Amino acid sequence: MKLVTFSAGSGPRVGVVDADRGVVRDLSGRLPAGAGLLDLIDGWAELGPSLAAATGTADDPEHALDPEHALDAVTLLAPIPVPRRNIFCVGKNYREHVAEFGRSGYDTPSRSEALPDKPIVFSKATTSVTGPGTEIDPHPGVAHELDYEAELAVIIGTGGRTIPAERAYEHVWGYTIVNDVTARDLQRDHKQWLLGKSLDTYCPMGPWAVTADEVGDVTRLQVESWVNGERRQKASVADLIFDIPTLIATISAGITLLPGDVIATGTPAGVGIGFDPPRFLTGGDVVEIAVTGLGTLTNRVGRTPTEEGDT
Amino acid sequence: MKLVTFSAGSGPRVGVVDADRGVVRDLSGRLPAGAGLLDLIDGWAELGPSLAAATGTADDPEHALDPEHALDAVTLLAPIPVPRRNIFCVGKNYREHVAEFGRSGYDTPSRSEALPDKPIVFSKATTSVTGPGTEIDPHPGVAHELDYEAELAVIIGTGGRTIPAERAYEHVWGYTIVNDVTARDLQRDHKQWLLGKSLDTYCPMGPWAVTADEVGDVTRLQVESWVNGERRQKASVADLIFDIPTLIATISAGITLLPGDVIATGTPAGVGIGFDPPRFLTGGDVVEIAVTGLGTLTNRVGRTPTEEGDT
Repeated sequence: MKLVTFSAGSGPRVGVVDADRGVVRDLSGRLPAGAGLLDLIDGWAELGPSLAAATGTADDPEHALDPEHALDAVTLLAPIPVPRRNIFCVGKNYREHVAEFGRSGYDTPSRSEALPDKPIVFSKATTSVTGPGTEIDPHPGVAHELDYEAELAVIIGTGGRTIPAERAYEHVWGYTIVNDVTARDLQRDHKQWLLGKSLDTYCPMGPWAVTADEVGDVTRLQVESWVNGERRQKASVADLIFDIPTLIATISAGITLLPGDVIATGTPAGVGIGFDPPRFLTGGDVVEIAVTGLGTLTNRVGRTPTEEGDT
Repeated sequence: MKLVTFSAGSGPRVGVVDADRGVVRDLSGRLPAGAGLLDLIDGWAELGPSLAAATGTADDPEHALDPEHALDAVTLLAPIPVPRRNIFCVGKNYREHVAEFGRSGYDTPSRSEALPDKPIVFSKATTSVTGPGTEIDPHPGVAHELDYEAELAVIIGTGGRTIPAERAYEHVWGYTIVNDVTARDLQRDHKQWLLGKSLDTYCPMGPWAVTADEVGDVTRLQVESWVNGERRQKASVADLIFDIPTLIATISAGITLLPGDVIATGTPAGVGIGFDPPRFLTGGDVVEIAVTGLGTLTNRVGRTPTEEGDT
């Protein structure tokens, strides 16, 4: 099932996308007023089965419950527009990206091409989240070396602590796409990565949150990105250095994971600093990220006042 | 004004502490059901003045609004038990602590005693927050080198982005104490500090949240800590490398600060890894942190099963 948070004139609502028919089934009638995807995930054990049974077709007795909107007539927001806390993110989790990051000189102070022997976990502030189709604010005057990072993100369903790797998938509600937008200059200069990763709009997310049952074997998914139509990244989730069960076990070893927590699993080789010279994003650039079965997340970089003057 | 979140038999409530009289004025009657300190901070422009006017004495016409509890008859929780997002924290922000951290060898991969030229900002997960008087879980099997860090924490009142340093104090609602408990082995081994700083109970906070007007000139405050009664840390907030206005300006340059955001400003010299050999915390150790006018935050380290067997 493909869940979305969308706006159709009024405030955010939750819906189920039928991509084949090009419609969104509006779930507002099944949820308390103001409830969002986080509430739906909290109540998934009860609500999930009834949603799965609803076909959305006219002969479904529950059809009238869920009014439909044409997909192209609504605005999709990030599936979780306001997370309960910062997004967990994993650094240096694909081999070739570790090498390109080390070579780039931005992995200060270590400048290491060695593979990490333990997961590197940091966070992005909640206010960095933005939806598909929005502009990434380049924050001129604050950041000067803007880069993209295509990532598969895990959405936790049932929370818990000390989750063993072999039971980790039982705690996964679903998946989405995250662009871990990064100001490389801030990432380098401030040593810890939070600031360079957390500027407003630096966490495009979506377009959909897809339930784990629809995804099936997540290791067969491909993560790809393009800038202005030119392919930059392509890797298989099977190539993660620390796989999803290991990440969940590592984080939850001491931290209670909560329903709705988002874990961005790391980016493959092919980011801007992987090129020599680096190919940073500039105003007007369009970044597309696709993950098998999860749709395509597209965001344009906003133009700075200087760039506006150039056009 | 000293605000607390407390429990007196039922769920969390918000109160004002009169330390001289040893009582808590219960503000439940002034707030919607279930509202907490975050809601009070959101509505501070309206609620703050009426709270300041209430004296709590019998001749106050609003006296009946706020039932009193004896301070020693209630359980104080963290002032903000469930923050809206991760706690912002600043690393290496007192000169002598930078030196001791560099010498310790735990500041990998750099092992640098050089002063940072930009603030180092990371976060602690929301679930690490715990109240005064609770036990710090040592997480045996996960963490093995437990350390304390006494810190002054800023609580944001009015949110905003691109807050200039010269207006930063207008955005400060108040202050509290945070113990930035750290598993040094995880901090070192995972490179980014989130995991080693975020284990459940690793963020004792409190006992009070004190409004900025009562604190006055924050740079005159002293931050002190003791372990089992032995003084370990003592410094003046005036000695911060990056002062509070600089921290607020730096973080908000690209990140929208929200009402209730907590910024822990860094720890002075005297932490466990500052000693040679390091003096890590063990089961039964009592950590006390005092900041001028903000009270004393006391937490005992829980005993591991092995240590229980020893006693």
